Amino acid sequence: MIPTQKDVREAVKRVSPYVHHTPVLTSATINGMLNASVFFKCENFQKMGAFKFRGAINAILQLSEDERARGVITHSSGNFAAALALAAKNLETKAYIVMPTDAPAVKREAVAGYGAHIIDCAPGLKSRESTMISQQKKTGATFIHPSNDLNVILGNSTAVMEMAKEVETMDVIIAPVGGGGLIAGTALATNYLSYYIETIGAEPFGADDAFLSLKTGKIQPSINPKTYADGLKTQLGDLNFPIIQKFVSKIIRVEESEIIESMKFIWERMKIVIEPSSAVAVAALFRNSSEFKNRKVGVILSGGNVDFSKLPF
Amino acid sequence: MIPTQKDVREAVKRVSPYVHHTPVLTSATINGMLNASVFFKCENFQKMGAFKFRGAINAILQLSEDERARGVITHSSGNFAAALALAAKNLETKAYIVMPTDAPAVKREAVAGYGAHIIDCAPGLKSRESTMISQQKKTGATFIHPSNDLNVILGNSTAVMEMAKEVETMDVIIAPVGGGGLIAGTALATNYLSYYIETIGAEPFGADDAFLSLKTGKIQPSINPKTYADGLKTQLGDLNFPIIQKFVSKIIRVEESEIIESMKFIWERMKIVIEPSSAVAVAALFRNSSEFKNRKVGVILSGGNVDFSKLPF
Repeated sequence: MIPTQKDVREAVKRVSPYVHHTPVLTSATINGMLNASVFFKCENFQKMGAFKFRGAINAILQLSEDERARGVITHSSGNFAAALALAAKNLETKAYIVMPTDAPAVKREAVAGYGAHIIDCAPGLKSRESTMISQQKKTGATFIHPSNDLNVILGNSTAVMEMAKEVETMDVIIAPVGGGGLIAGTALATNYLSYYIETIGAEPFGADDAFLSLKTGKIQPSINPKTYADGLKTQLGDLNFPIIQKFVSKIIRVEESEIIESMKFIWERMKIVIEPSSAVAVAALFRNSSEFKNRKVGVILSGGNVDFSKLPF
Repeated sequence: MIPTQKDVREAVKRVSPYVHHTPVLTSATINGMLNASVFFKCENFQKMGAFKFRGAINAILQLSEDERARGVITHSSGNFAAALALAAKNLETKAYIVMPTDAPAVKREAVAGYGAHIIDCAPGLKSRESTMISQQKKTGATFIHPSNDLNVILGNSTAVMEMAKEVETMDVIIAPVGGGGLIAGTALATNYLSYYIETIGAEPFGADDAFLSLKTGKIQPSINPKTYADGLKTQLGDLNFPIIQKFVSKIIRVEESEIIESMKFIWERMKIVIEPSSAVAVAALFRNSSEFKNRKVGVILSGGNVDFSKLPF
């Protein structure tokens, strides 16, 4: 069930014409503070503002012509809703997005702006899933899970593959862990790049289901997660967890105050807007700075979609 | 008194090893909205976060060895204080910065962090100037004015020169107008690049002394300016005004609400942090969008130093 090196390479070729080849930025200040060489892969500059576009476009590109004609469907109130909507638009495919009625207006507008059909559902996972299944029956659309889908994971793996072309011989890569799609893709690609590159996940203490799952060797439910990094509240899946178990060396957990300080620090010093989920990876870098000393560290800045009406500073 | 094309070319060569060659970014969303091709020169990514570093380093590089040994001095509570401090540090020169006691703590810390000597003065231009003169007498340091200095203007001109290497045949360049140092440098370089490129200034209605000066043909005092773009409250100078009169085709004035909306728009869509002064140039682009239709427009994003404790959204 674990994708091969060839699968990763083919995904890179497949998505390359459709994605932004996002820049890798560095900061002399941060390098000086940590005594390390840190490279930030700026997926906040990706289309629709997050790495999620990579997985979405790869998943649609893997469908047969017949499947594509019937469209794709997902349930999400976050970045993947917009990612699938935009990927579908770019590939002239229909997208059905099941969204809870309490999703932020700005997210609904983004999805609608990309021409997707929004199907309302009551808040809560049960309602989402039942609405999704009934809509799927009606349309024959293919369900694409936001993170627990091998094609989505492979699409996500292309960010670090792109980065490795630009930055050679990294020692360690840090990526945030939510549903597990980004860290699985990153760890997979990193392992195939070189056995010697370590992959580390970053998680809020308030949503540490991946940490606990790795510790217990069994997927732990994400019960009532509480964190400002709302993109990381989702639950690990049975397709990405084995990849994480096999290739991720550990998960660093961070406090809420560290997330907020790291977000502000990157905005202030690097003059780029990153979302709270990305700040979790930066916070892990700062928290465990001693272990990154004199190392070449890659950090995946997963996205830049921020609700400016709810800034914590 | 107006610098020549040769002066501009020499300034480019002189500062090139010391400045960041900042990226030029584009936004498909903005191009689509305006039916134009807009290129953003990201001086928010410049050293210390603003174009001001260019003028500061050029001014110090033009000093004799003897002058450099005695150091440089300026009075500023804003970006130029940090710019001169950092430029002096990079060139191993002493910098004396006269700062009012009510300057924001974060600005004082930045200046002190670059190793400059801070000389306190009471708030107000009179106290600034008298403190500066007495300190200058004591040290023999050379005074560098933040905007009304030909070497500063020439240093500033290098941003658009760099941009023109990357983006050919622009039709028009927009830059914000505060003390006049950036717009003068930009207009000068643009005129020497091609007679056919128009240079447009952007100013808040609440600080429109350059608009009024151009209209009346005489420098108008900046009396009690009121704008969120605090970098643009300063007054035109007698060295930059003749350049502005000769080479700037007009000034577009913008409302405060337009400045704030433009700043938020750039943060949200382009995922970069720009300061209010930069947003003034973007607001001018949006306000007069019809005149930029089907044109190739350069916008100088002058800086990214924002007080996050005073965000208007």
